[in-house]
Amino acid sequence: MSAAATVKRLRGDEVEVIAFERGEFSSYSACGIPYWIAGDVPDQDALIARSPEEHRANGIDLRMRHLVEGIDAGRGEVVVRDLEAGVEHRVGFDELVITTGARPVRPDLPGVDAPGVLGVQSLADGAAIRAELDRGAKRAVVVGAGYIGIELAEAMVRRGLQVVTVLEGAAQPMSTLDPELGEKVAAAMAGMGMTVRTGARVTGFLTGPDGRVRAVTTEHGEDPADLVVLGIGVRPEVGLAKDAGLKIGARGGIRTDDHQRVVGAEHIWAGGDCVEVRDRISGQYLTVALGTHANRHGRVIGSNLGGQEVRFPGVIGTAISKVCSLEIGRTGLGEQAARDAGFNVVTATIESTTHAGYMPDAGELTCKVIAERGTGRLVGAQIVGTGPGAGKRIDTFATAIWAGMSADELAHVDLSYAPPFSPTFDPVTVAARQAATAARRPL
Amino acid sequence: MSAAATVKRLRGDEVEVIAFERGEFSSYSACGIPYWIAGDVPDQDALIARSPEEHRANGIDLRMRHLVEGIDAGRGEVVVRDLEAGVEHRVGFDELVITTGARPVRPDLPGVDAPGVLGVQSLADGAAIRAELDRGAKRAVVVGAGYIGIELAEAMVRRGLQVVTVLEGAAQPMSTLDPELGEKVAAAMAGMGMTVRTGARVTGFLTGPDGRVRAVTTEHGEDPADLVVLGIGVRPEVGLAKDAGLKIGARGGIRTDDHQRVVGAEHIWAGGDCVEVRDRISGQYLTVALGTHANRHGRVIGSNLGGQEVRFPGVIGTAISKVCSLEIGRTGLGEQAARDAGFNVVTATIESTTHAGYMPDAGELTCKVIAERGTGRLVGAQIVGTGPGAGKRIDTFATAIWAGMSADELAHVDLSYAPPFSPTFDPVTVAARQAATAARRPL
Repeated sequence: MSAAATVKRLRGDEVEVIAFERGEFSSYSACGIPYWIAGDVPDQDALIARSPEEHRANGIDLRMRHLVEGIDAGRGEVVVRDLEAGVEHRVGFDELVITTGARPVRPDLPGVDAPGVLGVQSLADGAAIRAELDRGAKRAVVVGAGYIGIELAEAMVRRGLQVVTVLEGAAQPMSTLDPELGEKVAAAMAGMGMTVRTGARVTGFLTGPDGRVRAVTTEHGEDPADLVVLGIGVRPEVGLAKDAGLKIGARGGIRTDDHQRVVGAEHIWAGGDCVEVRDRISGQYLTVALGTHANRHGRVIGSNLGGQEVRFPGVIGTAISKVCSLEIGRTGLGEQAARDAGFNVVTATIESTTHAGYMPDAGELTCKVIAERGTGRLVGAQIVGTGPGAGKRIDTFATAIWAGMSADELAHVDLSYAPPFSPTFDPVTVAARQAATAARRPL
Repeated sequence: MSAAATVKRLRGDEVEVIAFERGEFSSYSACGIPYWIAGDVPDQDALIARSPEEHRANGIDLRMRHLVEGIDAGRGEVVVRDLEAGVEHRVGFDELVITTGARPVRPDLPGVDAPGVLGVQSLADGAAIRAELDRGAKRAVVVGAGYIGIELAEAMVRRGLQVVTVLEGAAQPMSTLDPELGEKVAAAMAGMGMTVRTGARVTGFLTGPDGRVRAVTTEHGEDPADLVVLGIGVRPEVGLAKDAGLKIGARGGIRTDDHQRVVGAEHIWAGGDCVEVRDRISGQYLTVALGTHANRHGRVIGSNLGGQEVRFPGVIGTAISKVCSLEIGRTGLGEQAARDAGFNVVTATIESTTHAGYMPDAGELTCKVIAERGTGRLVGAQIVGTGPGAGKRIDTFATAIWAGMSADELAHVDLSYAPPFSPTFDPVTVAARQAATAARRPL
């Protein structure tokens, strides 16, 4: 809808924009669902950025409950099923934009389809989880300790569930963090009362006499559950694109150029969770399901269609999250990912505080910086600290990495200081300085 | 002491370091005094970063209550008075470091020396203000609505004073902010219960029968006061340097090169509030009394003395403060300062929120960006918003300005997003994008 709105804003009545949505909602914040479940957000309407009516008022012919079943690139047509009327028809296009998003991973395991085993992506998923909580679920198992899994587990704790168990196949929660920082996240989760089982690969879902899920099994045993939420990530939804013979990358997303035009296709564009994005540091293609990138893609596509050339510049993997008061930020490559990408790196990890140490609400903060040996070029940074004010410091690193700065250059930047906001030397400065020193040291 | 500690760390027993301090405290956080007065910080000891004993344990011969009265550059000696013993002697040096700091401006007005008219720079000042509050002061007048004045006024309100009046000669509080943002600060101050009088030039201080201050007079009338705090800024303390014939700049600070060596002097260095610093954007020299710069200067001087060449790269005027929950950040040049410095600038001012708009604790935030017309090069940015999480975003702008980025480049940076931390597009992104658009527009 971002693409649609942008092109409509630029070209108005010159262009006819038709959008198909198989579901019942348009333009909602999927990222907000955990906060709706937790009760921070009063109702699902608050998560809807723009209703179908609002889009239509902007001149977009948005057709809800319409499922696109096929793309006929040769004839410039899509095959659409009107799910309400139950009829299928063809609609022609001069330019096609594919924004089919991603679908949650549902492992092919016994019992995965039992009632009580839920995903969390759509507003309907959120409503289903809320319904389970309202009907008195006491024990929840969250499968997957990535961003979404952790946010959901926190929502469950805050909703007062007696037992919240998080199962994670990897050795730590939040696998996008380096291990020493991931440990702190695990400790914060335990501190909130969650049971965190790492290295716990799910083998199946047991059901009770009523057919509903009653436990999750791993190689090590079983965890009882009135409710199971799957937070194991998403995969690009590329069925339509694949069937149309469009280029799919090694990571399973549609491959586009930096104008978001599908590689090898003439009048077909794609953006959002269904495409691969280029990591600016490693040069590799990734899939990153994030509203920010999706929105940017939409603007890029809409601008290009509207006659203004714009490029999507790639990503550096910046992300932020929280567990209770522990804020977690990361950007760039982690230590191992940097080595895997061929960088000869040094690291510096420092302990500091969010405010001047003598301020009563100063939170503890750990910051790790990854830089290239010799040049000191910043490659990545990670922050875990008690907020408010810890996590968003990652944007300073992200900007420095984006600009190609060295750790030494960042250490010199005139960052803001006042006791309620920072120690005299901001943790960013201290970490960058230590990384600069490490980078200068001979091997 | 930062210079002393750095050179000692690098060269150990090879070098003898003697430090003279006329007062009773070493290495304390003057910036923390308002928070000690407010009661956030339990006692003055919490503000002391390193005691004289700790410095001595690091091998620094720190002599407290020793006043340096003269510099004999030719002979390489300083004239020192031991204030306790009341004797004067000479101490030789190979290298001299001048870090005499700044002294608060005390206007030459009738009654300024009356009891109850206090400054706020030293721990003794803080103790004196606390004593006045403890003995029951009900009405306070703060003269000057800069960072310190506002922090002090807030401390008074929080200590429960009945009347807190802030007098400011300029048309708005916080004159380092552009007027439309300064207005929001004035509103927040009024919202806390302060009386803010702008355009109010103080003409004198009235005293009661006991000789103590009882009111502050301006051209418009008088404001009763049991206690007056002067927060009108500081001036570099350069008496010693001037007497020794060292180079003083147009702004009244000691002029150094970027190694912090005094211009024209062979073995004399200077840093901290007593020197002028170069603004990287305008190229002009300024005085900026800020612990961060002072600490950096100390490290630069200590490193150079210790055999490691380091340069101080200048400043861009980054600062942060708060009034109640309103956070205030600024960096680079303000709109008028940019024009005065010869830049042809455009501006963009946006309203956004600190978190996703649907989150219950999302704070409102105004962000102004100043960029060069045509190139879009970032020149300055200012943020005023309800925290936590508003003000520290200024560091992202500071880093981008430092790196010489354009508004368009910053608008593309992969900044962090999650509903408790940011709208899908961070306010930084939105403001940068609008500034980029404005910069592209023909005049």
